[in-house]
Amino acid sequence: MDPRSLSQISGAARVAESGEGISEEELALATRNHGLPLEALRYEVTPPGLHYVLVHYDIPAAPADWRLTVGGEVRNPLAMDMAELTALPAVTRRVTMECAGNGRALLAPRPISQPWLVEAVGTTDWTGVPLRAVLAEAGPSPGSVEAVFTGADHGVERGVEQDYQRSLPLPVDADVLLAFEMNGQPLPPQHGHPLRLIVPGWYGMAHVKWLRDISVVDTAFTGFQQSVAYRYRQHPEDAGEPVTRIAPRALMVPPGFPDFLTRTRIVPAGPVRLEGRTWSGFGPVTQVTLSSDGGRSWTLAEVTPPGAHRKAWQAWRAQWTATPGHHTLTVRAFDAEGHAQPLEQPWNRGGFGNNMVQRVPVFCR
Amino acid sequence: MDPRSLSQISGAARVAESGEGISEEELALATRNHGLPLEALRYEVTPPGLHYVLVHYDIPAAPADWRLTVGGEVRNPLAMDMAELTALPAVTRRVTMECAGNGRALLAPRPISQPWLVEAVGTTDWTGVPLRAVLAEAGPSPGSVEAVFTGADHGVERGVEQDYQRSLPLPVDADVLLAFEMNGQPLPPQHGHPLRLIVPGWYGMAHVKWLRDISVVDTAFTGFQQSVAYRYRQHPEDAGEPVTRIAPRALMVPPGFPDFLTRTRIVPAGPVRLEGRTWSGFGPVTQVTLSSDGGRSWTLAEVTPPGAHRKAWQAWRAQWTATPGHHTLTVRAFDAEGHAQPLEQPWNRGGFGNNMVQRVPVFCR
Repeated sequence: MDPRSLSQISGAARVAESGEGISEEELALATRNHGLPLEALRYEVTPPGLHYVLVHYDIPAAPADWRLTVGGEVRNPLAMDMAELTALPAVTRRVTMECAGNGRALLAPRPISQPWLVEAVGTTDWTGVPLRAVLAEAGPSPGSVEAVFTGADHGVERGVEQDYQRSLPLPVDADVLLAFEMNGQPLPPQHGHPLRLIVPGWYGMAHVKWLRDISVVDTAFTGFQQSVAYRYRQHPEDAGEPVTRIAPRALMVPPGFPDFLTRTRIVPAGPVRLEGRTWSGFGPVTQVTLSSDGGRSWTLAEVTPPGAHRKAWQAWRAQWTATPGHHTLTVRAFDAEGHAQPLEQPWNRGGFGNNMVQRVPVFCR
Repeated sequence: MDPRSLSQISGAARVAESGEGISEEELALATRNHGLPLEALRYEVTPPGLHYVLVHYDIPAAPADWRLTVGGEVRNPLAMDMAELTALPAVTRRVTMECAGNGRALLAPRPISQPWLVEAVGTTDWTGVPLRAVLAEAGPSPGSVEAVFTGADHGVERGVEQDYQRSLPLPVDADVLLAFEMNGQPLPPQHGHPLRLIVPGWYGMAHVKWLRDISVVDTAFTGFQQSVAYRYRQHPEDAGEPVTRIAPRALMVPPGFPDFLTRTRIVPAGPVRLEGRTWSGFGPVTQVTLSSDGGRSWTLAEVTPPGAHRKAWQAWRAQWTATPGHHTLTVRAFDAEGHAQPLEQPWNRGGFGNNMVQRVPVFCR
């Protein structure tokens, strides 16, 4: 091995040994990136600093001469600055975004990567220009099949040096945005300033941040984040299926108040109002069920029907009568396409799409 | 033990066993709270979503009828709404804030609590009303010795149910603020909306968030966060010294680009510009030294003198010539009061004031 090779400091994917605690490397990712504190499910639109953040490499500084270039298999290559982009007709879409690795640290064995529990989610009003409008101006050539999106964040991952890149098949959905505002403000640095891709209904890896280039291609993109990472596979040699849309999930605003260290919830005896949010990237959530006995029996929660915001989470609520002792509260979402949250977590080697039902330990005095 | 006792779910303080990995409880704190991604040291004023956050219990929702009450040993008890507070003459102060537990996860043995590495810091332009002005209006009685600050966050910690409370001795420093804006915007929920205390130069535990009451007292406050937590002690039975001002520290914007998992930095061979921030709660930083050989030899970095913002971090910069192979970069701050960052970390049971020099592994190709 070349002593200067990146493979010295950037190894292959691995899963934790049985009983192996969270490593300092996983902890370093957890102290940089963060989830939504679950009490912030109370906000229909998540304040930006509470929305989950995952940064693969470093947050890049936006250069003063930033341009979005659109090239490859197009008739009319573009280079647009922010004034040109914001001069186009803009739309605002409320979108729930979730990290594909949400829930990873609950898997056994645990894939070694960003160690999320269940909090890697948030909902934002994104304002930007429909991607279709910009692509139409560039004019993809006949025979073009995908658009490849390149961000400004640069790093190495499993030995592969790269700018973060992902692709989408053409034609793109009408609701895909090139977003420059988050809740009416310019994007914060950690959410992709000055421009990011928004792909409603898809896990976060598709929403390329710090977007600097779009390249139209006539063969399927096989870059690292498309063909190596973000695949559902059981073994290293599986080709695997691509990670795309968000599997259904319901989360609860944890009731009562917490213990600092264990985060166990303390509630008084009597009626407790439970509430939270539920979403699916496949369509509206049609049903949420609640169990207060660890999944042995279930009752229906009330679910707010999807309104104008078809790609945003819906509210749910339920009443529960607490009795003294220990309880485990569980909620389970079912979507219009027939998907249900699993009660036991299927496993995959990357730790993606882990939408096992949330379990909330509650202690009633 | 009463089967309904809080001690069932809220135990005593403890330190990790030798070789004990980060627990799921520590991880749950790390996914909620977050540090400053170190590349964000590039910003002189930290964007709010990048500033470190530590929430002891839950982020409370601000009630519509919120009031700040000022009572206890005063001639003129007050109840002020936000309109009354913001009608008072306001000032803006740039303040570097750091969590007292920053560095805790690097200790051996590791105190079990929020597992920070080195990133729990940030710098903000806080706008608010000097606490002295509000206390003067309330008129502390002769013989009053402290003011006790109560936040709206409620929880249990080591078996003690509480609203978060801390005190300061009277008279308070002139630069202590009741802050309602962060970088010119209303406080975000996680930073204390609608009002928080700002105590420049002190660790974060003193900057009480979601402030709802100030009570003037004539004996020293002995609440949990003052007398049990936030003490420098070696043994559980030590009374310990109180945690107050921020010990000096310098941090580096990690050079080059990172590996995703290990966060090891990759740089090309040749001259590398190094930069970062340095601060101390005891006074200006007068010197920063750099080592590229793990602390065997040191050179002087250039430090920006403190300007108008006496309680904010200062910039430092240095040049380093990278040669192929593995290196460890270290920076060390010295302040005007004669404090220096330690090269080996002294230990205390709470894991407070851990300002051991940062070590940044760098790989040069």
